[in-house]
Amino acid sequence: VSPEFSLIFKQIAPVVGSDPELVLGIGDDAALVSLPEAGEQVLAMDTLVAGRHFFPEQSAYDVGWKALAVNLSDLASMGAVPRFALLSLSLPQHLVMDQQAMWVSEFMRGWQAVAQPFGVVLIGGDTTVSPTLSISVTVIGYRPASSRAMLRQSAQVDDDLWVSGSIGSAGLALALLLSGEMPTELLAQALHRPLPRIALGQALLPLVNAAMDVSDGLLADLSHILHASGGIGAELYWEEIPMRVEVKAWADADAFLPLIAGDDYELLFSASARQRDAIMQTAQACQTPVTRIGRLTAQSGMKVIKNGQVLSLPSRLGFDHFQS
Amino acid sequence: VSPEFSLIFKQIAPVVGSDPELVLGIGDDAALVSLPEAGEQVLAMDTLVAGRHFFPEQSAYDVGWKALAVNLSDLASMGAVPRFALLSLSLPQHLVMDQQAMWVSEFMRGWQAVAQPFGVVLIGGDTTVSPTLSISVTVIGYRPASSRAMLRQSAQVDDDLWVSGSIGSAGLALALLLSGEMPTELLAQALHRPLPRIALGQALLPLVNAAMDVSDGLLADLSHILHASGGIGAELYWEEIPMRVEVKAWADADAFLPLIAGDDYELLFSASARQRDAIMQTAQACQTPVTRIGRLTAQSGMKVIKNGQVLSLPSRLGFDHFQS
Repeated sequence: VSPEFSLIFKQIAPVVGSDPELVLGIGDDAALVSLPEAGEQVLAMDTLVAGRHFFPEQSAYDVGWKALAVNLSDLASMGAVPRFALLSLSLPQHLVMDQQAMWVSEFMRGWQAVAQPFGVVLIGGDTTVSPTLSISVTVIGYRPASSRAMLRQSAQVDDDLWVSGSIGSAGLALALLLSGEMPTELLAQALHRPLPRIALGQALLPLVNAAMDVSDGLLADLSHILHASGGIGAELYWEEIPMRVEVKAWADADAFLPLIAGDDYELLFSASARQRDAIMQTAQACQTPVTRIGRLTAQSGMKVIKNGQVLSLPSRLGFDHFQS
Repeated sequence: VSPEFSLIFKQIAPVVGSDPELVLGIGDDAALVSLPEAGEQVLAMDTLVAGRHFFPEQSAYDVGWKALAVNLSDLASMGAVPRFALLSLSLPQHLVMDQQAMWVSEFMRGWQAVAQPFGVVLIGGDTTVSPTLSISVTVIGYRPASSRAMLRQSAQVDDDLWVSGSIGSAGLALALLLSGEMPTELLAQALHRPLPRIALGQALLPLVNAAMDVSDGLLADLSHILHASGGIGAELYWEEIPMRVEVKAWADADAFLPLIAGDDYELLFSASARQRDAIMQTAQACQTPVTRIGRLTAQSGMKVIKNGQVLSLPSRLGFDHFQS
């Protein structure tokens, strides 16, 4: 084992945590986990690439935070309790050669700031050199056997459409940064340190039909639910969509800007109108605001209604990881 | 969803396979797996980077093969039955823009050539653009609850030391390629299309103490076992180490070349001398040769004995992913 690797391992090992069902964690060929007696396991994997998913000059702390948070957001949207993560770090040579392993140390501090409160234990992964800084994460959680609850394909015609938190803050922060302006601390946090809606996701499991997390933009992600649920449609009431006041001002230029910006990591979900009260109570118990923003329709397509008028949709519905 | 993504998804979707315990596969925020009633889950994650783990001009078929095979090798060394995989592809723009998605299509053909015979179902992952072609894979398998069997830390003093297959073929193939020569088909296969020792790993579970797969080089990986097992030592009998005749000839220049070359993906394991017959019978049943190459000692350190003489160890014991 090279001195560089030892140093990096020293940054990673202290934050792995422990879990009663973890038989063997980091340091062998594979991790061993003893299985609970029932339920479903929920697994997701996301990769973040420097220059595409975060600014190359972004603080390592923020990158560590976001790498885990966006993965946990996928578990939240399935109503899962997160438990374990595997982390593969691909590091440019200069970060590996750093005598203090500062980048990795800061990355792990940011990672741990998310892992610790959500009880996520790091059980394995890989570290390698690559010309491009990139982070792959696999997260594993559990949920009670829940049939088709919270799947994209489970939306029903006439369902209410809901969203957690507020929309467009991360998008506005990114737009400001790209035009050389500084976002406020609150907006920057929305972009760099999203909070996965874990508690809300679990609490919603028995109440909602379809759910997903808003990562590519509200409209793009809604279109995925509509498509997966057999080509149904949706009506969105623009004025109901929760946005910070500065995001509303940003939308003066183009009403769709906050809806196609992505990186929100809020939960978008559909539920029968009978569940309205239960959903509001649940959200309150989770201290997470939720807002009813529209409804699902038998007629296909998305309608965004503002001031009583149907807006014509933009050609690009959201963030596309394949766009250059 | 962009046309490029649709095209790539079309290459991936047909090969995902099915599994009775897979509740929900590719296409949602996360995959859902119903859990068996007992046992341990085994999880491993490895990343392959172009120019480091494979030649950038390597055929996509071979890269797909190797990306899955090296991950399954980690499960083999824990005695696990592989079941599921998540795949994150980071592709340079020109591979994404290819109208026929040829690279991804070939990659998936190579992947499937390994996934299909071993029953590995692709349940999720990610696809993104990156300047550097890179592949992260997470594999998931099961094994009966087995205490400390086949862990690196489970080696005992006086254990026999065994290895499957033969050593150094992939290393010789790489050395030939790096010096501009063509390896024979057999050597090239060892390098580009390793076969994970899945059946042997499962069969060895009740018989052996420590085990790991040889990926960084026989000596480097043996040193991991010795270190993890409390700083015990090993004696290796050079003449007993199984090598092809052309690898033996390569070793005329330096006896250590095949032992530090890496990429073997054979199983290295230790077992009590009482298990010799059972191990030989098991290996025969699995149609996988195994060879006793040494024994573990209370005295720390590794001794390689050739012609009755103890060779002095090289300073570099194996392949190091952090070397430039």
